[in-house]
Amino acid sequence: MGPTFITLEGPDGSGKSTQAALLAERLRQIGLPVVLTREPGGTSVGQKLREILLNPDIKLSVMTEVLLMAADRAQHVQEVIKPALENNMVVVCDRYIDSSLAYQGFGLLGEISQVKAINETAIDGIWPDLTILLDVEPEAGLRRHRQAESEAGRSQCSGRTNGLDRIEQRDLQFHQRVRDGYHVLTRMYAQRFVVIDTTRLQIETVAQKVWEAVAQRIKAAHG
Amino acid sequence: MGPTFITLEGPDGSGKSTQAALLAERLRQIGLPVVLTREPGGTSVGQKLREILLNPDIKLSVMTEVLLMAADRAQHVQEVIKPALENNMVVVCDRYIDSSLAYQGFGLLGEISQVKAINETAIDGIWPDLTILLDVEPEAGLRRHRQAESEAGRSQCSGRTNGLDRIEQRDLQFHQRVRDGYHVLTRMYAQRFVVIDTTRLQIETVAQKVWEAVAQRIKAAHG
Repeated sequence: MGPTFITLEGPDGSGKSTQAALLAERLRQIGLPVVLTREPGGTSVGQKLREILLNPDIKLSVMTEVLLMAADRAQHVQEVIKPALENNMVVVCDRYIDSSLAYQGFGLLGEISQVKAINETAIDGIWPDLTILLDVEPEAGLRRHRQAESEAGRSQCSGRTNGLDRIEQRDLQFHQRVRDGYHVLTRMYAQRFVVIDTTRLQIETVAQKVWEAVAQRIKAAHG
Repeated sequence: MGPTFITLEGPDGSGKSTQAALLAERLRQIGLPVVLTREPGGTSVGQKLREILLNPDIKLSVMTEVLLMAADRAQHVQEVIKPALENNMVVVCDRYIDSSLAYQGFGLLGEISQVKAINETAIDGIWPDLTILLDVEPEAGLRRHRQAESEAGRSQCSGRTNGLDRIEQRDLQFHQRVRDGYHVLTRMYAQRFVVIDTTRLQIETVAQKVWEAVAQRIKAAHG
């Protein structure tokens, strides 16, 4: 028996948040205590930072964005993730350090050394035990994501232009660099990454694949 | 002729803000274009971060505080300091990287390697040409500072407990470590530091000493 830290990663529109919620529910059904959380915004100061980070009307330099994401993460680790793991819970987190490496490192700066160094100070040694990359072609992901946002009427929300937040507004080439970056990370951290290609898959099918990846680790960690 | 970047450092109650304003005024009187600014909070996102940083009711881990200060600084450098220096202006800044090294490095963590590495990514190579340390015994500084706050009726402001913000609330030992830390920095960066002992000096006398330190550099840089 031991704690398990599971992160879900992937581009917007890959279905991360839905899959994180389904996974947490399934873990609860087998009797495990679960914390379902997300970044940015997993703490009260994080909520304030999330508003700043996603608001396209606030000017942020690249390094400001990197440092704010890391600040959000540092607080999240100390206030939520570390205490939950110490209490032997399973933590399911929608985005974590790999999002900063992929989006800010590979996507914005073209390399990850600075982003990795800054984030290593933020995570205090707490790396995920398992990271599930929900993979999707950037075009398909953006289309799916924009459709979902439009159905939710998000274009009316404050802080969004054309219904898209700061990161969604970036161009397709940026999102392609992010996706390629994620694939570099799966090779760098091959032991903890599982990749699921979500193209043309139903939510239930993806959920089953996620569960298969998780069940194996949970069995090892929680008996 | 060339730009000059001057920072003022020291504990609360050392008179930094007053001296920064007097210095900026005197530089303007001799015909130099001056930007007077401060940290944290020198940009619009910085103002939001300043509110979070100084509010003692918001929980922040040490590393969150370090990263938020650095995020504030990164934006300040790109949005204010770097453009002003590129336009050949004199920049006078009330607190800069040395405050993070002294308060968060020496004061909170007991060493500066992580704080220094993070802040070097934030400042993008923009080190001060001249840093004036307004030195004062921590007890005298705190007494002076608390008296000024009380006269200004600040204890009524939101986000303050007993009229003191997050950093002012820390104990005297913390403030002693900060002061000692500043003195370590004056030796590490001896070329750019000038120390003025403000104990028992009138504002005008300190202003004259600040001016003597600055005039020399200005003459060299601006002819």
